[in-house]
Amino acid sequence: MERRLAAILSADVVGYSRLMGADDEGTLATLSTYRDVVDSLIAEHQGHVFGSAGDSVVAEFGSAVQSVRCAVAIQRAINRRNADLPDRQRMEFRIGVNLGDIMVQNDNLYGDGVNVAARIGEVADPSDICNSSEAYEQIAGKVSFPTSSLGERNLKNIARPVSIYRVDWRLDDMQAREILRGSLSLPDK
Amino acid sequence: MERRLAAILSADVVGYSRLMGADDEGTLATLSTYRDVVDSLIAEHQGHVFGSAGDSVVAEFGSAVQSVRCAVAIQRAINRRNADLPDRQRMEFRIGVNLGDIMVQNDNLYGDGVNVAARIGEVADPSDICNSSEAYEQIAGKVSFPTSSLGERNLKNIARPVSIYRVDWRLDDMQAREILRGSLSLPDK
Repeated sequence: MERRLAAILSADVVGYSRLMGADDEGTLATLSTYRDVVDSLIAEHQGHVFGSAGDSVVAEFGSAVQSVRCAVAIQRAINRRNADLPDRQRMEFRIGVNLGDIMVQNDNLYGDGVNVAARIGEVADPSDICNSSEAYEQIAGKVSFPTSSLGERNLKNIARPVSIYRVDWRLDDMQAREILRGSLSLPDK
Repeated sequence: MERRLAAILSADVVGYSRLMGADDEGTLATLSTYRDVVDSLIAEHQGHVFGSAGDSVVAEFGSAVQSVRCAVAIQRAINRRNADLPDRQRMEFRIGVNLGDIMVQNDNLYGDGVNVAARIGEVADPSDICNSSEAYEQIAGKVSFPTSSLGERNLKNIARPVSIYRVDWRLDDMQAREILRGSLSLPDK
Protein backbone atom coordinates (compact mmCIF):
# COMPACT_ATOMS: atom_id res chain seq x y z
CA MET A 1 0.00 0.00 0.00
CA GLU A 2 1.27 3.41 -0.97
CA ARG A 3 0.60 6.59 1.08
CA ARG A 4 1.07 10.13 -0.09
CA LEU A 5 -0.03 13.67 0.66
CA ALA A 6 -2.38 14.90 -2.02
CA ALA A 7 -5.02 17.45 -2.89
CA ILE A 8 -8.28 15.69 -3.70
CA LEU A 9 -10.92 17.10 -6.03
CA SER A 10 -14.36 15.50 -5.78
CA ALA A 11 -17.04 16.47 -8.28
CA ASP A 12 -20.57 15.28 -8.87
CA VAL A 13 -23.60 16.30 -10.90
CA VAL A 14 -26.37 18.26 -9.19
CA GLY A 15 -29.63 16.26 -9.29
CA TYR A 16 -28.06 13.44 -11.32
CA SER A 17 -30.68 10.83 -10.36
CA ARG A 18 -33.48 13.25 -11.22
CA LEU A 19 -31.94 14.10 -14.63
CA MET A 20 -31.37 10.41 -15.39
CA GLY A 21 -34.96 9.60 -14.40
CA ALA A 22 -36.33 12.28 -16.73
CA ASP A 23 -34.18 11.56 -19.83
CA ASP A 24 -31.59 8.81 -19.51
CA GLU A 25 -30.00 8.88 -22.96
CA GLY A 26 -29.89 12.68 -23.10
CA THR A 27 -28.38 12.83 -19.60
CA LEU A 28 -25.76 10.22 -20.45
CA ALA A 29 -24.88 12.09 -23.67
CA THR A 30 -24.38 15.38 -21.78
CA LEU A 31 -22.52 13.61 -18.97
CA SER A 32 -20.15 11.96 -21.47
CA THR A 33 -19.41 15.27 -23.20
CA TYR A 34 -18.88 17.09 -19.89
CA ARG A 35 -16.78 14.24 -18.48
CA ASP A 36 -14.47 14.58 -21.49
CA VAL A 37 -14.10 18.28 -20.65
CA VAL A 38 -13.53 17.55 -16.94
CA ASP A 39 -11.04 14.74 -17.59
CA SER A 40 -8.98 16.75 -20.04
CA LEU A 41 -8.85 19.76 -17.67
CA ILE A 42 -7.73 17.46 -14.85
CA ALA A 43 -4.95 16.07 -17.06
CA GLU A 44 -3.94 19.62 -18.14
CA HIS A 45 -3.52 20.53 -14.46
CA GLN A 46 -1.40 17.43 -13.75
CA GLY A 47 -4.18 15.65 -11.90
CA HIS A 48 -5.06 11.97 -12.07
CA VAL A 49 -8.63 10.64 -12.17
CA PHE A 50 -9.31 7.67 -9.90
CA GLY A 51 -12.19 5.18 -10.03
CA SER A 52 -15.43 6.92 -10.84
CA ALA A 53 -18.94 5.50 -10.60
CA GLY A 54 -21.95 7.13 -12.24
CA ASP A 55 -21.69 10.90 -12.00
CA SER A 56 -18.90 11.14 -9.44
CA VAL A 57 -15.32 12.06 -10.27
CA VAL A 58 -12.45 11.82 -7.81
CA ALA A 59 -9.06 13.18 -8.84
CA GLU A 60 -5.74 13.51 -7.08
CA PHE A 61 -3.28 16.37 -7.50
CA GLY A 62 0.25 16.80 -6.21
CA SER A 63 -0.50 20.51 -5.63
CA ALA A 64 -3.42 22.22 -3.88
CA VAL A 65 -2.95 25.31 -6.06
CA GLN A 66 -3.27 23.21 -9.22
CA SER A 67 -6.34 21.37 -7.88
CA VAL A 68 -8.18 24.65 -7.20
CA ARG A 69 -7.10 26.15 -10.55
CA CYS A 70 -8.44 23.00 -12.16
CA ALA A 71 -11.75 23.27 -10.27
CA VAL A 72 -12.17 26.86 -11.49
CA ALA A 73 -11.30 25.86 -15.08
CA ILE A 74 -13.91 23.07 -14.87
CA GLN A 75 -16.69 25.34 -13.57
CA ARG A 76 -15.90 28.02 -16.17
CA ALA A 77 -15.89 25.50 -19.03
CA ILE A 78 -19.14 23.84 -17.89
CA ASN A 79 -20.76 27.24 -17.35
CA ARG A 80 -19.90 28.33 -20.92
CA ARG A 81 -21.31 25.10 -22.34
CA ASN A 82 -24.49 25.31 -20.25
CA ALA A 83 -25.11 28.84 -21.54
CA ASP A 84 -25.62 27.38 -25.03
CA LEU A 85 -28.15 24.76 -23.90
CA PRO A 86 -31.88 25.00 -23.13
CA ASP A 87 -32.59 25.03 -19.38
CA ARG A 88 -33.72 21.41 -19.11
CA GLN A 89 -30.51 20.10 -20.73
CA ARG A 90 -28.14 22.01 -18.44
CA MET A 91 -25.97 20.01 -16.11
CA GLU A 92 -24.14 21.56 -13.17
CA PHE A 93 -21.35 20.13 -11.05
CA ARG A 94 -20.54 20.71 -7.38
CA ILE A 95 -16.87 20.47 -6.43
CA GLY A 96 -15.16 19.83 -3.10
CA VAL A 97 -11.41 20.17 -2.58
CA ASN A 98 -9.48 18.85 0.40
CA LEU A 99 -5.99 17.76 1.43
CA GLY A 100 -5.30 14.29 2.72
CA ASP A 101 -2.65 11.75 3.48
CA ILE A 102 -4.24 9.25 1.15
CA MET A 103 -3.72 5.58 0.38
CA VAL A 104 -3.55 4.09 -3.11
CA GLN A 105 -4.50 0.48 -3.73
CA ASN A 106 -5.59 -1.32 -6.92
CA ASP A 107 -5.77 1.97 -8.80
CA ASN A 108 -8.26 3.36 -6.28
CA LEU A 109 -7.86 6.20 -3.81
CA TYR A 110 -8.77 5.74 -0.13
CA GLY A 111 -8.69 7.70 3.09
CA ASP A 112 -10.46 10.15 5.32
CA GLY A 113 -9.27 13.00 3.08
CA VAL A 114 -11.10 11.52 0.09
CA ASN A 115 -14.35 11.08 2.02
CA VAL A 116 -14.18 14.61 3.43
CA ALA A 117 -13.61 16.01 -0.10
CA ALA A 118 -16.80 14.24 -1.25
CA ARG A 119 -18.78 15.54 1.75
CA ILE A 120 -17.53 19.09 1.11
CA GLY A 121 -18.72 18.73 -2.50
CA GLU A 122 -22.14 17.70 -1.20
CA VAL A 123 -22.56 20.94 0.78
CA ALA A 124 -21.52 23.11 -2.19
CA ASP A 125 -24.29 24.86 -4.12
CA PRO A 126 -24.71 24.05 -7.83
CA SER A 127 -21.62 25.22 -9.81
CA ASP A 128 -19.79 26.14 -6.60
CA ILE A 129 -16.34 25.09 -5.44
CA CYS A 130 -15.81 24.56 -1.72
CA ASN A 131 -12.46 23.95 -0.01
CA SER A 132 -11.58 22.73 3.43
CA SER A 133 -9.48 25.13 5.50
CA GLU A 134 -6.53 22.75 4.96
CA ALA A 135 -6.79 23.28 1.20
CA TYR A 136 -7.49 26.99 1.66
CA GLU A 137 -4.32 27.49 3.70
CA GLN A 138 -2.23 26.08 0.87
CA ILE A 139 -3.75 28.30 -1.81
CA ALA A 140 -4.12 31.60 0.08
CA GLY A 141 -2.06 34.28 -1.68
CA LYS A 142 -1.19 31.91 -4.53
CA VAL A 143 -4.33 32.01 -6.69
CA SER A 144 -6.03 34.92 -8.43
CA PHE A 145 -9.60 34.44 -7.16
CA PRO A 146 -11.06 35.44 -3.81
CA THR A 147 -12.70 33.05 -1.35
CA SER A 148 -15.49 33.51 1.19
CA SER A 149 -15.57 31.69 4.51
CA LEU A 150 -18.76 29.67 4.96
CA GLY A 151 -17.86 28.83 8.56
CA GLU A 152 -17.72 25.43 10.21
CA ARG A 153 -19.97 22.63 9.02
CA ASN A 154 -20.79 19.23 10.47
CA LEU A 155 -20.43 16.71 7.66
CA LYS A 156 -22.18 13.32 7.64
CA ASN A 157 -20.12 10.59 9.32
CA ILE A 158 -17.14 12.95 9.76
CA ALA A 159 -16.13 13.25 13.42
CA ARG A 160 -14.84 16.84 13.49
CA PRO A 161 -16.50 19.95 12.07
CA VAL A 162 -14.82 21.22 8.89
CA SER A 163 -14.19 24.91 8.08
CA ILE A 164 -15.31 25.56 4.54
CA TYR A 165 -14.26 28.26 2.06
CA ARG A 166 -16.03 28.98 -1.20
CA VAL A 167 -13.99 30.00 -4.26
CA ASP A 168 -15.70 32.96 -5.90
CA TRP A 169 -14.81 32.02 -9.47
CA ARG A 170 -17.80 33.82 -11.03
CA LEU A 171 -16.26 37.26 -10.49
CA ASP A 172 -14.63 38.67 -13.59
CA ASP A 173 -10.86 39.08 -13.45
CA MET A 174 -11.00 42.85 -12.88
CA GLN A 175 -13.30 42.51 -9.85
CA ALA A 176 -11.23 39.63 -8.50
CA ARG A 177 -7.99 41.63 -8.74
CA GLU A 178 -9.57 44.60 -6.96
CA ILE A 179 -10.93 42.40 -4.18
CA LEU A 180 -7.56 40.73 -3.73
CA ARG A 181 -5.90 44.20 -3.57
CA GLY A 182 -8.42 45.15 -0.87
CA SER A 183 -9.95 48.05 -2.83
CA LEU A 184 -13.33 46.34 -3.23
CA SER A 185 -15.24 44.10 -0.86
CA LEU A 186 -16.69 40.75 -1.84
CA PRO A 187 -20.22 41.13 -3.27
CA ASP A 188 -22.99 38.94 -1.94
CA LYS A 189 -23.42 35.95 -4.16
CA MET B 1 -24.10 2.93 -26.58
CA GLU B 2 -25.43 -0.44 -25.52
CA ARG B 3 -28.73 -0.92 -23.66
CA ARG B 4 -29.86 -4.03 -21.85
CA LEU B 5 -32.25 -5.21 -19.18
CA ALA B 6 -30.36 -6.14 -16.03
CA ALA B 7 -30.62 -6.72 -12.32
CA ILE B 8 -28.40 -4.25 -10.48
CA LEU B 9 -26.85 -4.92 -7.09
CA SER B 10 -25.56 -1.87 -5.24
CA ALA B 11 -23.59 -2.35 -2.01
CA ASP B 12 -21.84 0.03 0.31
CA VAL B 13 -20.25 0.00 3.75
CA VAL B 14 -22.25 1.26 6.72
CA GLY B 15 -20.49 4.26 8.29
CA TYR B 16 -17.55 4.03 5.89
CA SER B 17 -16.42 7.65 6.40
CA ARG B 18 -16.58 7.24 10.16
CA LEU B 19 -14.57 3.97 10.07
CA MET B 20 -11.98 5.54 7.74
CA GLY B 21 -11.71 8.59 10.01
CA ALA B 22 -11.07 6.40 13.06
CA ASP B 23 -8.53 3.97 11.55
CA ASP B 24 -7.72 4.39 7.89
CA GLU B 25 -5.21 1.57 7.35
CA GLY B 26 -7.27 -0.93 9.39
CA THR B 27 -10.43 0.05 7.51
CA LEU B 28 -8.73 -0.27 4.13
CA ALA B 29 -7.32 -3.68 5.11
CA THR B 30 -10.78 -4.98 6.12
CA LEU B 31 -12.39 -3.38 3.06
CA SER B 32 -9.85 -5.05 0.75
CA THR B 33 -10.43 -8.46 2.31
CA TYR B 34 -14.22 -8.07 2.20
CA ARG B 35 -14.14 -6.72 -1.36
CA ASP B 36 -12.28 -9.87 -2.43
CA VAL B 37 -15.10 -11.92 -0.85
CA VAL B 38 -17.81 -9.75 -2.49
CA ASP B 39 -16.14 -9.74 -5.91
CA SER B 40 -15.64 -13.50 -5.97
CA LEU B 41 -19.26 -14.14 -4.92
CA ILE B 42 -20.46 -11.78 -7.68
CA ALA B 43 -18.37 -13.70 -10.24
CA GLU B 44 -19.67 -17.03 -8.88
CA HIS B 45 -23.22 -15.82 -9.47
CA GLN B 46 -22.43 -14.69 -13.05
CA GLY B 47 -22.46 -11.02 -12.14
CA HIS B 48 -20.10 -8.34 -13.41
CA VAL B 49 -18.67 -5.57 -11.22
CA PHE B 50 -18.72 -2.10 -12.76
CA GLY B 51 -16.72 0.99 -11.77
CA SER B 52 -16.47 1.27 -8.01
CA ALA B 53 -15.26 4.25 -6.00
CA GLY B 54 -14.33 4.04 -2.33
CA ASP B 55 -16.68 1.67 -0.52
CA SER B 56 -19.36 1.37 -3.18
CA VAL B 57 -19.83 -1.66 -5.41
CA VAL B 58 -22.19 -1.76 -8.39
CA ALA B 59 -22.71 -5.08 -10.17
CA GLU B 60 -24.89 -6.16 -13.04
CA PHE B 61 -26.58 -9.56 -13.38
CA GLY B 62 -28.47 -11.10 -16.27
CA SER B 63 -30.89 -12.67 -13.75
CA ALA B 64 -32.76 -11.13 -10.80
CA VAL B 65 -32.81 -14.51 -9.02
CA GLN B 66 -29.02 -14.76 -9.27
CA SER B 67 -28.53 -11.17 -8.07
CA VAL B 68 -30.59 -11.80 -4.92
CA ARG B 69 -28.92 -15.17 -4.28
CA CYS B 70 -25.61 -13.34 -4.60
CA ALA B 71 -26.72 -10.61 -2.16
CA VAL B 72 -27.67 -13.29 0.41
CA ALA B 73 -24.36 -15.12 -0.11
CA ILE B 74 -22.50 -11.82 0.43
CA GLN B 75 -24.34 -10.96 3.66
CA ARG B 76 -23.88 -14.50 5.03
CA ALA B 77 -20.15 -14.51 4.22
CA ILE B 78 -19.57 -11.04 5.71
CA ASN B 79 -21.63 -11.95 8.78
CA ARG B 80 -19.49 -15.06 9.41
CA ARG B 81 -16.28 -13.04 9.06
CA ASN B 82 -17.55 -10.24 11.32
CA ALA B 83 -18.36 -12.79 14.04
CA ASP B 84 -14.62 -13.52 14.34
CA LEU B 85 -13.65 -9.85 14.72
CA PRO B 86 -13.74 -7.49 17.72
CA ASP B 87 -16.68 -5.06 17.55
CA ARG B 88 -14.69 -2.03 16.42
CA GLN B 89 -13.21 -3.89 13.42
CA ARG B 90 -16.54 -5.15 12.10
CA MET B 91 -17.70 -3.84 8.76
CA GLU B 92 -21.27 -4.21 7.53
CA PHE B 93 -22.67 -3.73 4.04
CA ARG B 94 -26.10 -2.54 2.96
CA ILE B 95 -27.37 -3.91 -0.33
CA GLY B 96 -30.01 -2.63 -2.75
CA VAL B 97 -31.28 -4.66 -5.72
CA ASN B 98 -33.30 -3.28 -8.61
CA LEU B 99 -34.12 -4.01 -12.24
CA GLY B 100 -33.35 -1.52 -14.97
CA ASP B 101 -33.01 -1.01 -18.69
CA ILE B 102 -29.45 0.15 -18.27
CA MET B 103 -26.85 1.73 -20.55
CA VAL B 104 -23.24 0.65 -20.80
CA GLN B 105 -20.55 3.08 -21.87
CA ASN B 106 -16.76 3.06 -21.32
CA ASP B 107 -17.06 0.09 -18.97
CA ASN B 108 -19.44 1.99 -16.73
CA LEU B 109 -23.10 1.36 -16.00
CA TYR B 110 -25.66 4.18 -16.26
CA GLY B 111 -29.38 4.69 -15.91
CA ASP B 112 -32.25 5.36 -13.60
CA GLY B 113 -32.23 1.69 -12.56
CA VAL B 114 -28.67 1.99 -11.26
CA ASN B 115 -29.41 5.15 -9.26
CA VAL B 116 -32.57 3.62 -7.76
CA ALA B 117 -30.58 0.51 -6.72
CA ALA B 118 -28.11 2.77 -4.87
CA ARG B 119 -30.92 4.71 -3.16
CA ILE B 120 -32.60 1.45 -2.10
CA GLY B 121 -29.28 0.36 -0.60
CA GLU B 122 -29.16 3.63 1.34
CA VAL B 123 -32.50 2.94 3.05
CA ALA B 124 -31.48 -0.61 4.02
CA ASP B 125 -30.43 -1.22 7.61
CA PRO B 126 -26.90 -2.51 8.27
CA SER B 127 -26.47 -6.05 6.82
CA ASP B 128 -29.91 -5.89 5.17
CA ILE B 129 -30.86 -6.53 1.58
CA CYS B 130 -33.67 -4.47 0.10
CA ASN B 131 -35.30 -5.01 -3.31
CA SER B 132 -37.55 -2.86 -5.40
CA SER B 133 -40.93 -4.38 -6.21
CA GLU B 134 -39.68 -4.85 -9.79
CA ALA B 135 -36.89 -7.11 -8.53
CA TYR B 136 -39.22 -8.76 -6.01
CA GLU B 137 -41.70 -9.73 -8.72
CA GLN B 138 -38.98 -11.58 -10.61
CA ILE B 139 -37.79 -13.57 -7.60
CA ALA B 140 -41.11 -14.38 -5.88
CA GLY B 141 -41.54 -18.15 -5.72
CA LYS B 142 -38.07 -18.74 -7.13
CA VAL B 143 -35.81 -18.23 -4.10
CA SER B 144 -35.74 -20.04 -0.77
CA PHE B 145 -35.88 -17.05 1.60
CA PRO B 146 -38.89 -15.02 2.65
CA THR B 147 -39.26 -11.26 2.15
CA SER B 148 -41.11 -8.58 4.14
CA SER B 149 -42.75 -5.60 2.53
CA LEU B 150 -41.42 -2.31 3.91
CA GLY B 151 -44.02 -0.30 1.98
CA GLU B 152 -43.48 2.62 -0.33
CA ARG B 153 -40.56 4.98 0.20
CA ASN B 154 -39.70 8.32 -1.31
CA LEU B 155 -36.07 8.15 -2.40
CA LYS B 156 -33.86 11.21 -2.83
CA ASN B 157 -34.07 12.68 -6.36
CA ILE B 158 -36.26 9.79 -7.56
CA ALA B 159 -39.57 11.05 -8.96
CA ARG B 160 -41.86 8.16 -8.07
CA PRO B 161 -42.16 6.37 -4.71
CA VAL B 162 -40.57 2.89 -4.72
CA SER B 163 -42.09 -0.19 -3.05
CA ILE B 164 -39.39 -1.92 -1.06
CA TYR B 165 -39.08 -5.54 0.09
CA ARG B 166 -36.52 -6.79 2.60
CA VAL B 167 -34.98 -10.24 2.12
CA ASP B 168 -35.00 -12.03 5.48
CA TRP B 169 -31.74 -13.90 4.96
CA ARG B 170 -30.97 -14.19 8.70
CA LEU B 171 -33.62 -16.88 9.23
CA ASP B 172 -32.21 -20.38 9.36
CA ASP B 173 -33.19 -22.68 6.50
CA MET B 174 -35.75 -24.61 8.57
CA GLN B 175 -37.60 -21.42 9.62
CA ALA B 176 -37.43 -20.07 6.08
CA ARG B 177 -38.95 -23.25 4.61
CA GLU B 178 -41.78 -23.21 7.17
CA ILE B 179 -42.54 -19.57 6.46
CA LEU B 180 -42.58 -20.21 2.72
CA ARG B 181 -44.94 -23.18 3.29
CA GLY B 182 -47.18 -20.86 5.32
CA SER B 183 -46.97 -22.85 8.55
CA LEU B 184 -45.08 -20.11 10.40
CA SER B 185 -45.41 -16.34 10.22
CA LEU B 186 -42.47 -14.03 9.75
CA PRO B 187 -40.91 -13.05 13.12
CA ASP B 188 -40.21 -9.42 13.89
CA LYS B 189 -36.66 -8.60 13.01
